[in-house]
Amino acid sequence: MEYRFPEKVMGKRDSLIREIAEKGRAIPGFLSFAMGNPAPESIPVECLQQCAAEVFSEDPMAVLQYGPMEGDGKLAAWIRNRLTGAKGLPEDGQRLLLLTGSGKALGLLPRTLCAEGDRAFCDSFTFPNAFNSVKNVGGIPVGIPMDEKGMIPEALEKEAAKGGGKYVYLIPNFQNPTGMTMPFERRRELYEVARKYDLIIYEDDPYGEIRFSGEAVPAIKSLDEDGRVLYVGSFSKTLSAGLRVGFLYGAGELVGKIASVKGADGQDPLFNQKIIEKCLEKMDYEAHLKEISAIYGKKCMAMAEGLKKACAPSLGIHVPEGGMFLWVTVPETVDVDAMSDAALKAGVGVVKSAAFAVDPQKAGHAFRLNFSAPTLEQIEEGVKRFGEVTKEFC
Amino acid sequence: MEYRFPEKVMGKRDSLIREIAEKGRAIPGFLSFAMGNPAPESIPVECLQQCAAEVFSEDPMAVLQYGPMEGDGKLAAWIRNRLTGAKGLPEDGQRLLLLTGSGKALGLLPRTLCAEGDRAFCDSFTFPNAFNSVKNVGGIPVGIPMDEKGMIPEALEKEAAKGGGKYVYLIPNFQNPTGMTMPFERRRELYEVARKYDLIIYEDDPYGEIRFSGEAVPAIKSLDEDGRVLYVGSFSKTLSAGLRVGFLYGAGELVGKIASVKGADGQDPLFNQKIIEKCLEKMDYEAHLKEISAIYGKKCMAMAEGLKKACAPSLGIHVPEGGMFLWVTVPETVDVDAMSDAALKAGVGVVKSAAFAVDPQKAGHAFRLNFSAPTLEQIEEGVKRFGEVTKEFC
Repeated sequence: MEYRFPEKVMGKRDSLIREIAEKGRAIPGFLSFAMGNPAPESIPVECLQQCAAEVFSEDPMAVLQYGPMEGDGKLAAWIRNRLTGAKGLPEDGQRLLLLTGSGKALGLLPRTLCAEGDRAFCDSFTFPNAFNSVKNVGGIPVGIPMDEKGMIPEALEKEAAKGGGKYVYLIPNFQNPTGMTMPFERRRELYEVARKYDLIIYEDDPYGEIRFSGEAVPAIKSLDEDGRVLYVGSFSKTLSAGLRVGFLYGAGELVGKIASVKGADGQDPLFNQKIIEKCLEKMDYEAHLKEISAIYGKKCMAMAEGLKKACAPSLGIHVPEGGMFLWVTVPETVDVDAMSDAALKAGVGVVKSAAFAVDPQKAGHAFRLNFSAPTLEQIEEGVKRFGEVTKEFC
Repeated sequence: MEYRFPEKVMGKRDSLIREIAEKGRAIPGFLSFAMGNPAPESIPVECLQQCAAEVFSEDPMAVLQYGPMEGDGKLAAWIRNRLTGAKGLPEDGQRLLLLTGSGKALGLLPRTLCAEGDRAFCDSFTFPNAFNSVKNVGGIPVGIPMDEKGMIPEALEKEAAKGGGKYVYLIPNFQNPTGMTMPFERRRELYEVARKYDLIIYEDDPYGEIRFSGEAVPAIKSLDEDGRVLYVGSFSKTLSAGLRVGFLYGAGELVGKIASVKGADGQDPLFNQKIIEKCLEKMDYEAHLKEISAIYGKKCMAMAEGLKKACAPSLGIHVPEGGMFLWVTVPETVDVDAMSDAALKAGVGVVKSAAFAVDPQKAGHAFRLNFSAPTLEQIEEGVKRFGEVTKEFC
């Protein structure tokens, strides 16, 4: 049978990140800076294990039968309380929706907001699922140029003025892949552009809790006066990625519509949410965040220092204030594809900027390096290998 | 802000099933035959609890870190083996995809197969998410008339001939809501219509393992010669609904495209899959299915016998050979809405056929009664209450 797939699902690019992981597996002693896994030593394994056992024994039917469509109310209340308290997000008329990983929102937003042909704006380099999911509904993802503060408001305005735009996708804290943090003033400017062109802002903040230097910047959602900003958060980087618990938070009408689209997919598992809920109850979460941020900071510094020592001087090393990724830029004369292959051959996996490029014609001259998953020893050795490659190419 | 939602997500009907659950909560001593929960006594609680503890302690990082996108390979292999062995499904060129509940396939199919305006065919009365998810992508769900054997092939052919059709959604075993089982000949006829009009068949089989009378009928997928049939199964009714583990199985190219659409939503939790996998390893699944089918059969018979004794003779009682639902039809002169309200007032929740009607103009004259969730005592008492109502209305 010849399948008649609609245009929208055809011709998706393969994941370059997965490709590197697969090629790496065939190389003995391969060291990967390619994946986005949190630091394993930052996961509170024993606490989660104990919580899982308690959740199961206290009320097994609550986790083994169908549960409430909206998920665990206690966890939702805990998150809401933190968002409107410590984070300073607006409270009135807002609704929280638990998700099986915050990544689920990447699919839900275009499904809820975009008809075929509608446009969604995002950074020119961003998390690939953010633009793939727009294509999946027949929408058009539009990459907006960035500077060292993130998305450029004038560039967004230029595209927004063309019409057909529905939302702007942003990762204001420790952006993936560049690691950049958007200053408050830039957040405000982008919010004003969104207001002028009636766009929703999808503020994705999976890394925001992992800050190891500098000062926290208020969320765009904290500026939200008209229910325009959806704030999306996660426990994947702070407690466990594998349990898949995230959330979105925004104006009741908007979240209600997203929940209605989500509802037709059936329920999410409650067990995972209840484990996270119990863990938050037991632990001092703020102290835990400080502890793990210190772990991330130490690894980041080790990688940055190592790169400065080992690499060609023409390499641009962009050290983030938090998160999991360090971004290095190479001169525009460098053959990035060849350099990526050479790094693989040298036994170190880094991800070239093409993997994150909304427009494949603008593949960029940079690499994303993850410092959270490898050990300090692996960082030291991997950086040396990468350094040799930079000396050859840059 | 006024949200500019696309046409496709506007004007969804509220869930009548949830409405009954909510109204019932306000009624003291309310007995519900409205929900679709499996029998709690059929869930192997201790085994699952033990498996959860073992999964966690054996390799915590495997469930707490990001895992493979395709889910747990061991569970996938177990399912594949059973499908191609005991179930007689084709093996060559097929691929299995694990899902967070088989209900996730309801959203994935239209997202993968339908452009706006494309049509999907289903029984005129069916599981609401099956048609709501088609509307969510701007597709058009088309209800096809049924007789006592299920969807009528000539009626499907008439609609398919109009063009624009992409797939046919069927629940051949113990259909929701009618409880009907489609005979083998009918399955073959529908497969031939699908072939003639180049349609995919989405064979949803969440209840198939719970057969308490009659003989098993081979799956439509067992007839599949050209990669046209997607078989979707679940552990929700046999092990645990709350853990949310299901799967789809079909031709590699088709499943690959579905996996690619699903991929942009991010990962599913591996923990839940591993618990199910370990439980299947530990228990005698076939013996377990026999045991729980006997439990379901006993409850079904109790409800059927009770209805025959307590109800007006004009009530049509359709006793299924398996599954969780019993379908009762009332004369066409009956005001079904008023009767539904009267049942609620009498303290028993049943779901009127309108809840499952693809075309709200063809709301039908019937009710779905669930016999798996209530106890035998609740069935006895609830049936009496419903009997009084039928005597008033029928």
